[in-house]
Amino acid sequence: MLLSMRDDEGLGRITLAQVAQEAGVSISTVSKVLNGRRDVATPTRVKVERILDENAYRRTTRAAREAPLIELVFHELESVWALELIRGVEKVAKASGASVVLTESGTRHAPGPEWIEGVLRRRPRGVVLVFSSLPSEVKQQLLSRTIPFVVIDPAGDPDPDVPSVGSANWNGGLAATRHLVQLGHRRIGIITGPEDMLCSLARLDGYRSALSMAGLPADPELVRYGDFHVEGGRERAAELLDLDDPPTAIFAGSDLQALGVLEAARLRDLRVPHDLSVVGYDDVPLARWSSPPLTTVHQPLRQMAEGAAQMLMRLRSEEPVATRVELATSLVVRESTAECRQGR
Amino acid sequence: MLLSMRDDEGLGRITLAQVAQEAGVSISTVSKVLNGRRDVATPTRVKVERILDENAYRRTTRAAREAPLIELVFHELESVWALELIRGVEKVAKASGASVVLTESGTRHAPGPEWIEGVLRRRPRGVVLVFSSLPSEVKQQLLSRTIPFVVIDPAGDPDPDVPSVGSANWNGGLAATRHLVQLGHRRIGIITGPEDMLCSLARLDGYRSALSMAGLPADPELVRYGDFHVEGGRERAAELLDLDDPPTAIFAGSDLQALGVLEAARLRDLRVPHDLSVVGYDDVPLARWSSPPLTTVHQPLRQMAEGAAQMLMRLRSEEPVATRVELATSLVVRESTAECRQGR
Repeated sequence: MLLSMRDDEGLGRITLAQVAQEAGVSISTVSKVLNGRRDVATPTRVKVERILDENAYRRTTRAAREAPLIELVFHELESVWALELIRGVEKVAKASGASVVLTESGTRHAPGPEWIEGVLRRRPRGVVLVFSSLPSEVKQQLLSRTIPFVVIDPAGDPDPDVPSVGSANWNGGLAATRHLVQLGHRRIGIITGPEDMLCSLARLDGYRSALSMAGLPADPELVRYGDFHVEGGRERAAELLDLDDPPTAIFAGSDLQALGVLEAARLRDLRVPHDLSVVGYDDVPLARWSSPPLTTVHQPLRQMAEGAAQMLMRLRSEEPVATRVELATSLVVRESTAECRQGR
Repeated sequence: MLLSMRDDEGLGRITLAQVAQEAGVSISTVSKVLNGRRDVATPTRVKVERILDENAYRRTTRAAREAPLIELVFHELESVWALELIRGVEKVAKASGASVVLTESGTRHAPGPEWIEGVLRRRPRGVVLVFSSLPSEVKQQLLSRTIPFVVIDPAGDPDPDVPSVGSANWNGGLAATRHLVQLGHRRIGIITGPEDMLCSLARLDGYRSALSMAGLPADPELVRYGDFHVEGGRERAAELLDLDDPPTAIFAGSDLQALGVLEAARLRDLRVPHDLSVVGYDDVPLARWSSPPLTTVHQPLRQMAEGAAQMLMRLRSEEPVATRVELATSLVVRESTAECRQGR
């Protein structure tokens, strides 16, 4: 599916004057609403927004007054991913002479109303959202001001009508597990992400397919769901390592979970990779810094962010863009995996 | 020393009209220069800036048109600190209804000319710089537009005339070393930061004082200068551990260097903390996630960033502020340190 900012241009013929007339207000009031100004009474603003929406109004004077800003919205800045994503967007912004405005929405799903008002006032070149979805009302507000938006969605579950960038989770799970199979491991545990995220399920399916292709059974006892954090990784690994027939290798669904596996192994006097092989996921900088350095699945976070920002630029120039781009993942072999020692 | 935006208010009496007259241009041209507009010829802009500077012009109409933005400038977004600092500034910005504009200057010392033009156009509430110094010309431009600025300077070497926030490096070095002395260690190595940074020297002096207070000699062979990165920590630790009489404990000048020490120990089959105690510095999130979790000196990065942003707010309301604030550091004991085993 291809999408362009002009998708519905056939409808976008209403003028500011017509909106004003229909709403029974002055053109300057409509203009204030378009620019997110606060000095318009709420009922008036709601009415004007509704008319803009119903008539699929599209501002056509974008270039004249927009600010060289790209908005980047996180729901939380906690994750080790955040910096990689910021750097990717910052790089594209800088190359185009723009600055990045950073917002932490604080809520899981979408930035709040103060945020959208601020965006309308600032008139940025575009909006990149990380992991967030946009309420349809906010989408409409951005569309009518001709402010393009793209979602970076590593979780693999984007709105179908919003352009988004993700990565190939199933292939990542497959590559991690194949690597362990090739090292001679037969009992391979997995700690994937939360059960309600598509990326967790895709990685788990990749793991199962790799086992099945190697003619190995998938023992349900060896499958755990984690929370993508260190603590959860440590707890799930402890469960796996304390089984009567423990795994000789664990595929952790994130680098943070892999760090938790390393700690669970250390507490049991198991040496990695000598006694236990561990594969992470993400390849954030700390994967290189871990002791031993982690074999992991590289998720190209910075390129995903660059891709999202470049997608904005293409939307601005009204080129058609794909609504969903998935970048490839790849296995990075470091020192946390080794050949299985038979009969351990 | 106390500093206020009104320090030189006695001088700040020149009007826009007088500047225009002296420069031989229109008031609107002076106004364009003040707002960072590009449609003014460079010689004219330079002349107007010079007159503004010589007369210590101060804009008095700040509140009217400024944007609810706080500028945050890094010279590079590489460091594990960056996210902590961003979150601190973001928190204060959000509480005051402002958004954060993030810039990576790319150069070690100061943001470039495009940056200052952008700032003048955006008219932010203030500027927080990380590690950077400001050329005096840029300082003057910000002062004349009444845009306050504060430097977060964990390196401990700020310009004396710029408000800055740092932390107590000497005390941190003292606390880390005392902890190791109390655990019975007598041969304690240190990998401090680069030789040309004041924070490295302060931490080293804290180390020396702790040894001296315990009546222990400071063996110059046990002192190394690092680069604050993992790789350098690993290399310096390798040198220390390969000495004829190696240390039983190493105080690494940063958490990243401490991770390098862990890896050097692992490669020599030394268990931490059983065979070697390790103390980090900074207490960034990965210190908790390391295996074993790092005993480290907590540098309150997020609070330093909050402090800097709050300092901006005080400068805006023309309260006098201290030019230099140092926040306390504190030792966090986790699992990378243990009692010295005599006669190892």
